[in-house]
Amino acid sequence: MHTTKSYRLYQLSKAGRLCVPAMNINDSVTKQKFDNLYCCRESILDGLKRLTDVMFGGKQVVVCGYGEVGKGCSAALKAMGSIVYITEVDPICALQACMDCFRLVKLNDVIRQVDMVITCTGNKNVVGRDYLDRMKNGCIVCNMGHSNTEIDVASLRSPELTWERVRSQVDHVIWPDGKRIILLAEGHLLNLSCSTVPTFILSITATTQVYYFYNLYNAPEGRYNKDVYLLPKKMDEFVAGLHLPTFDAHLTELTDEQAKYLGLTKTGPFKPNYYRWGNTHTHSHLKHIMHIYTVKAGMNMNSNVIWRSSMFLWLTVRVFIAGTNPWK
Amino acid sequence: MHTTKSYRLYQLSKAGRLCVPAMNINDSVTKQKFDNLYCCRESILDGLKRLTDVMFGGKQVVVCGYGEVGKGCSAALKAMGSIVYITEVDPICALQACMDCFRLVKLNDVIRQVDMVITCTGNKNVVGRDYLDRMKNGCIVCNMGHSNTEIDVASLRSPELTWERVRSQVDHVIWPDGKRIILLAEGHLLNLSCSTVPTFILSITATTQVYYFYNLYNAPEGRYNKDVYLLPKKMDEFVAGLHLPTFDAHLTELTDEQAKYLGLTKTGPFKPNYYRWGNTHTHSHLKHIMHIYTVKAGMNMNSNVIWRSSMFLWLTVRVFIAGTNPWK
Amino acid sequence: MHTTKSYRLYQLSKAGRLCVPAMNINDSVTKQKFDNLYCCRESILDGLKRLTDVMFGGKQVVVCGYGEVGKGCSAALKAMGSIVYITEVDPICALQACMDCFRLVKLNDVIRQVDMVITCTGNKNVVGRDYLDRMKNGCIVCNMGHSNTEIDVASLRSPELTWERVRSQVDHVIWPDGKRIILLAEGHLLNLSCSTVPTFILSITATTQVYYFYNLYNAPEGRYNKDVYLLPKKMDEFVAGLHLPTFDAHLTELTDEQAKYLGLTKTGPFKPNYYRWGNTHTHSHLKHIMHIYTVKAGMNMNSNVIWRSSMFLWLTVRVFIAGTNPWK
Amino acid sequence: MHTTKSYRLYQLSKAGRLCVPAMNINDSVTKQKFDNLYCCRESILDGLKRLTDVMFGGKQVVVCGYGEVGKGCSAALKAMGSIVYITEVDPICALQACMDCFRLVKLNDVIRQVDMVITCTGNKNVVGRDYLDRMKNGCIVCNMGHSNTEIDVASLRSPELTWERVRSQVDHVIWPDGKRIILLAEGHLLNLSCSTVPTFILSITATTQVYYFYNLYNAPEGRYNKDVYLLPKKMDEFVAGLHLPTFDAHLTELTDEQAKYLGLTKTGPFKPNYYRWGNTHTHSHLKHIMHIYTVKAGMNMNSNVIWRSSMFLWLTVRVFIAGTNPWK
Repeated sequence: MHTTKSYRLYQLSKAGRLCVPAMNINDSVTKQKFDNLYCCRESILDGLKRLTDVMFGGKQVVVCGYGEVGKGCSAALKAMGSIVYITEVDPICALQACMDCFRLVKLNDVIRQVDMVITCTGNKNVVGRDYLDRMKNGCIVCNMGHSNTEIDVASLRSPELTWERVRSQVDHVIWPDGKRIILLAEGHLLNLSCSTVPTFILSITATTQVYYFYNLYNAPEGRYNKDVYLLPKKMDEFVAGLHLPTFDAHLTELTDEQAKYLGLTKTGPFKPNYYRWGNTHTHSHLKHIMHIYTVKAGMNMNSNVIWRSSMFLWLTVRVFIAGTNPWK
Repeated sequence: MHTTKSYRLYQLSKAGRLCVPAMNINDSVTKQKFDNLYCCRESILDGLKRLTDVMFGGKQVVVCGYGEVGKGCSAALKAMGSIVYITEVDPICALQACMDCFRLVKLNDVIRQVDMVITCTGNKNVVGRDYLDRMKNGCIVCNMGHSNTEIDVASLRSPELTWERVRSQVDHVIWPDGKRIILLAEGHLLNLSCSTVPTFILSITATTQVYYFYNLYNAPEGRYNKDVYLLPKKMDEFVAGLHLPTFDAHLTELTDEQAKYLGLTKTGPFKPNYYRWGNTHTHSHLKHIMHIYTVKAGMNMNSNVIWRSSMFLWLTVRVFIAGTNPWK
Repeated sequence: MHTTKSYRLYQLSKAGRLCVPAMNINDSVTKQKFDNLYCCRESILDGLKRLTDVMFGGKQVVVCGYGEVGKGCSAALKAMGSIVYITEVDPICALQACMDCFRLVKLNDVIRQVDMVITCTGNKNVVGRDYLDRMKNGCIVCNMGHSNTEIDVASLRSPELTWERVRSQVDHVIWPDGKRIILLAEGHLLNLSCSTVPTFILSITATTQVYYFYNLYNAPEGRYNKDVYLLPKKMDEFVAGLHLPTFDAHLTELTDEQAKYLGLTKTGPFKPNYYRWGNTHTHSHLKHIMHIYTVKAGMNMNSNVIWRSSMFLWLTVRVFIAGTNPWK
Repeated sequence: MHTTKSYRLYQLSKAGRLCVPAMNINDSVTKQKFDNLYCCRESILDGLKRLTDVMFGGKQVVVCGYGEVGKGCSAALKAMGSIVYITEVDPICALQACMDCFRLVKLNDVIRQVDMVITCTGNKNVVGRDYLDRMKNGCIVCNMGHSNTEIDVASLRSPELTWERVRSQVDHVIWPDGKRIILLAEGHLLNLSCSTVPTFILSITATTQVYYFYNLYNAPEGRYNKDVYLLPKKMDEFVAGLHLPTFDAHLTELTDEQAKYLGLTKTGPFKPNYYRWGNTHTHSHLKHIMHIYTVKAGMNMNSNVIWRSSMFLWLTVRVFIAGTNPWK
């Protein structure tokens, strides 16, 4: 579930218009801190390379938005030698960007000089026609944020501009004076449209989602009202723990004395936790699902995102829509 | 307020033994994401250099704990060319460490080979005598975490080991076979004992703290019970915003249309917010405090931590203990 | 020209068997410090992603060889969150790897645990059958170094192993126990076979090559014997200078006083220079070539390496083989 | 020996005014690629912190010069979260700066906005009075380059400016309007005046220097004329090899087949080598040199450092005093 979409859920809930219980998967740590951040760190480079063969070194890039997606994109681009500028509306994210070695600018101040513009705000009309008009020749414009609202693509469909389809997902939009900007995926999400997504990260998100659905499905009558819920920390920890062996990573266990000192149980949750989690007999089933993902992830053989999305859809459909519980 | 100490507050609250309302400053974003992370990123290098003149390049270091403090320390050391290993008990932080390019290990598996051991767990007895016995000659041991519990220093005060004070805050502990480990600050916090702390970051934390106290002080009768409270997001945003001009950072403002689309007011809060904040006439006063800090931060002239702590204490004493409100 | 191939030239020269003058382009700074380093920094990620969709975060990778190619590959992988090990035979490069935050290991010591093996040595049989036998399931093996000698692919063509072509340039080699390794480009150069190469870097190399040929073609009778020559520093500087405007980069000029102090002319060469360069009326012609490359580079439209190679071949054929000088 | 000073030697040699043979140690790879780069990477942060307690995160810094020293300084500052601009006169270094993710600017274009100015050019009057006049309040100015010529300190000793000594090596220079700049070490070398230098790197340089002297002293009559010489690669490799065990680094050995393929002997040199290494004794000179270094090393009190210095002494004693030559 998408960040902006989770706001929508809370809006519905607040308005009393949510007709079923909803789980806010986007804000679970295993989604937000892994999928949004690390996935985008990988896919921004992959998407740009596959579509444009652009060199990253020395390029000036403005990343609009410094949430998890913006953090991932800007970290990757900086790491590959780009000079990255950030725009933000939230002062906290803005201050983080500063401390992380990025210049915080208004789009207006850098639009003429940048080689790439990447939107990650979840907002609309972040890159309007006025900005598009002032971009320099050859500027690449793409969206890593929310649906297709961030770039005002509609404004480019006007008689004075010529569109030239260079290859799938790549359009040159040509101004009367010959200037062209390179628009990717017609402003839709670059990482979903044009790059692969690491199956490992997908596995984290998918496992989390399955847990959410399972939790919802198994809940005793009356536990969940027509509201938006977050997954308990302990389950996030469980999902994370399932993925550690891939890295040959060795977790440290608390001693009895240490657990007592910290006021924790030795098996977690290790962070404050206001939620409860029911029966745990599902773990072995989940491990089976994990196995499927891990085999794929381990071999890196997945041919495309579509397959993986189907896989995930199948899982959730089995659990949720069709009303059967595959683990019982 | 320290991470582990905030756990203590929640424990007291849960046990019904909290006798006044308490504010959890540690978990406010301006404290946790700035002070813990960025402050430690700066002070770990500074503290180690001032005390030991150690070269960072190529050194093998194990950082125990990958919370914000551990993230800051390991990022700085990696950036300076050290090879960093991480130990963790929480699978989520562990998985982050893996994705951030660190080997997740058990202390036991690397203790013989590392050149430095840095504790950032908030836990006790993380580095016990058995580990100290197996460290190699010249290994540096220090604590960036919680009070002086993380390294079992008491176990080193035994007859078969010789202590040699090399300089202030630096002890060589010498084994019968001549092996020496270099213990810093006798296991107390390195960043508080032996390094300076960036005044800019201190200013963020101090401003946040002052807001908390002010909020508590000004609250109408009955608003706060004997419980632990978090500062509303909007105030975190305000504190962050006060610090942006230092970086000549330019915040973007939402258009009316965008604010409506996101369901936000144009002045924030920009993130979900479940708290309320009272009167806002204090902002101009706060700006005055900010001015004091900014002058100091801008000139980088603060001679030591003690001065700054005193400054902060004075402020809070004025506000809280003495019962006067300087802004009225 | 390739590093190992330039050694071959010097061998021929030493043996008195070089039958024409040769120019060592590989060791010119604009080739070695840009093409080898920055090109590989970009293409290692691109090649691996396109062929395998592998996630880089947290992966353990061993890079064999820490010359410019190895430096580029390991920098990129570390930047994307991989844990990189280096093998080296030269103690100087080895010490650089240590200082740059990599563990220097023997291949034997990490071969069982790594997720990827990348060869960049210019040597032969760096990854022999004994290593291939011990790799873990799913390990990716590829070559960024010299022709196809580095991985002993011949040893894998034996009856007990099954080859499965997964897609173009990707083979699974399957052991009797089911273990599979993923061999890319059958051990040929990954960056030439399977990824794009930044046209900007190609332009630097190609411009340098054209200068070499031009210099050779225009040399007065008797200037060059049957030996191996390096391009004068001044020409390297000229080539570099031609490429700066792409980055909107502003070069500082020496004042008269400064030039005198350093014993340099204001137009360079800025570094010690033992070679002479003849007539300079070619610059305007070269700028024309540059223009062609820059147009392509700016728009990022080049579809493949082949086109670019052809372009370059055409240029050199015009200059060198066909015996015409397009600039006269 | 300093970079600019080695130019001086070549100038003397060219003019026939060099009265003894000279060894160019500065351009040996173990000096240039280790001392200049890695030493400065460590000491720039250390020097700035000790003198000013400045926070690096988010600060705008201009580094003048992108040679090895400039590369080290800018890499460290970028790694710690600063936004770094580079000025250069040499187009090759300039292009490297661009590819390494720095904006290449003229000092004039950023002088009003930067928080720090660091000179690493080896040139004179890089920061003249006109720039000093335009710096913003609180700007830190220091020199990592060549003697005390880079900053025009003399121009600041004028009646309208007030000097205020804040602490040892730190002066505030105050303009009539109250603006102050923070001048470090009165423009002398920051890393020599105000920071420690990693003894490990010092050991590399010192060992190289000792070898040079030894080589010079032992040379048969007539081998060296009144000219400037470089150390043979093999000796650089030997010096590097002596320092690898500190990192527990494991060098790979060439097989017979591989050495033959590359046309190398298995013990190196691994890179082209036009020099020869002789033998004989020079112990009195060595003793003196060692004395100087031991005093310096003694100031950095890490025990492992002391060990290494001893190790180094032992080695040189073996070679020089005891009259045995381990390379025979």
